[in-house]
Amino acid sequence: MARTRGKQKPASDRDLAKLLVIAIPLADEIQPGDSIATKLLQAARKRRITFCAGDVLVVKHKIVSKVEGRVVDLDSVKPSEESIAWAKQYGLDARVIELALRESRAVIRRRNGVLITETHHGFICANSGVDVSNVDGGHHAVLLPEDPDRSAARLKRALKKATGLTIPVIITDSFGRPWREGLTEFAIGIAGMKPLRDYRSWRDPHGYKLKASVEAVADELACAAGLVCGKLNRAPACIIRGFRYDRGAGSARQLLRAPATDLFR
Amino acid sequence: MARTRGKQKPASDRDLAKLLVIAIPLADEIQPGDSIATKLLQAARKRRITFCAGDVLVVKHKIVSKVEGRVVDLDSVKPSEESIAWAKQYGLDARVIELALRESRAVIRRRNGVLITETHHGFICANSGVDVSNVDGGHHAVLLPEDPDRSAARLKRALKKATGLTIPVIITDSFGRPWREGLTEFAIGIAGMKPLRDYRSWRDPHGYKLKASVEAVADELACAAGLVCGKLNRAPACIIRGFRYDRGAGSARQLLRAPATDLFR
Repeated sequence: MARTRGKQKPASDRDLAKLLVIAIPLADEIQPGDSIATKLLQAARKRRITFCAGDVLVVKHKIVSKVEGRVVDLDSVKPSEESIAWAKQYGLDARVIELALRESRAVIRRRNGVLITETHHGFICANSGVDVSNVDGGHHAVLLPEDPDRSAARLKRALKKATGLTIPVIITDSFGRPWREGLTEFAIGIAGMKPLRDYRSWRDPHGYKLKASVEAVADELACAAGLVCGKLNRAPACIIRGFRYDRGAGSARQLLRAPATDLFR
Repeated sequence: MARTRGKQKPASDRDLAKLLVIAIPLADEIQPGDSIATKLLQAARKRRITFCAGDVLVVKHKIVSKVEGRVVDLDSVKPSEESIAWAKQYGLDARVIELALRESRAVIRRRNGVLITETHHGFICANSGVDVSNVDGGHHAVLLPEDPDRSAARLKRALKKATGLTIPVIITDSFGRPWREGLTEFAIGIAGMKPLRDYRSWRDPHGYKLKASVEAVADELACAAGLVCGKLNRAPACIIRGFRYDRGAGSARQLLRAPATDLFR
């Protein structure tokens, strides 16, 4: 039986895997200027959860946006006539549409009351990720962090300072998908690990060289986190233990398909 | 603080979550006619892994297809002239393209050597899911199971018979995504649980009624499984423990967006 030849297998395949995903619930609301690292470490300590070498931390973007002041009072938003007309047609909040357009660099689709945009970062999602749930009952909207990679790197540094450990950080948001119902979590910011695992140079257990095998592990980690970070509990973060990630600087930009090779723009 | 009013929270949010994902490695290759339940239970026993009430079993479709004889000798495929011409243009195997077209009910995109089809089941993916890796070095192609929901139900019944436990089953495949690099796992067959969790009638901790909040938990479970079921190890299945799924018949068809509401056809 031909095993992978010449090259050693990627870390994750060396031995058999067992993954643990542990939610970190916060007792109270995150405030602008709070240290997420401090809040999460306090919360973890309270639950006797200890960060370990090899852990990956996954954080919902909303607490990051709140800490960074990416929260907008909807009463302060003056929507354009275009936003008003379109929102009215579908019973939507024109101020949210206005924010979504401001946060976008392109409108990908606008139909049947659904607005799919490309954000300034390059993420393609509904309403540029502008969200009014889990804020304060509909008076404020949360925007995506300005630079989620930078936010992830900052959190990674703060964790390093507090614990001495190098813990990769993934920041996530829930997006819809073409062709499929329901939202899943996606990685929008990354620090300390590679978001993609490239199997293309490896051979399968039959000696066949793998072709279209680049795995978006950061998105899969985001999804695993989504299963424990509920929308109704106060667990905006979790630890994933046992995943042998590939070290490296990493950036969520690596997850963005270049428009030229994208068939669905 | 306004908690969810009137209605009890969905199961998963009642208490804090901890998820365990345990790979089940197989010692040898699955053969046509094998019982997957028997093979997996034997393999689990060997590793001292015991199935428990509440577990979800996630299985890569490839072993299901093999057991069900959905394997085609590429030498037996006579490609059409159209398939030959297109494959030649991009250095592809015309026999694989031919199979992909036969397994499809519509071509969604065909450009730059990439063929995105809608399969007979309704999944939209590259080459109708026809795959030549992890078979026998490139001589055979594996097709998707004819009816992955039925395959999942069959496996669920066999597990029930062997263990007395009711274990939901998810069958997965790796698909690419528009706009994003890399593949992730998707649920293509389901039995014993609901693939979507609907939060729309719930209120967030601020009392705000959640709107666009239907979570494709089956796809998130598929992704969590993808992290431990490597492409190069022989772990085509895993147990996910600690996820409070919503019981119900369930079908992967519920994950398919109706063409009328899909903006990316």
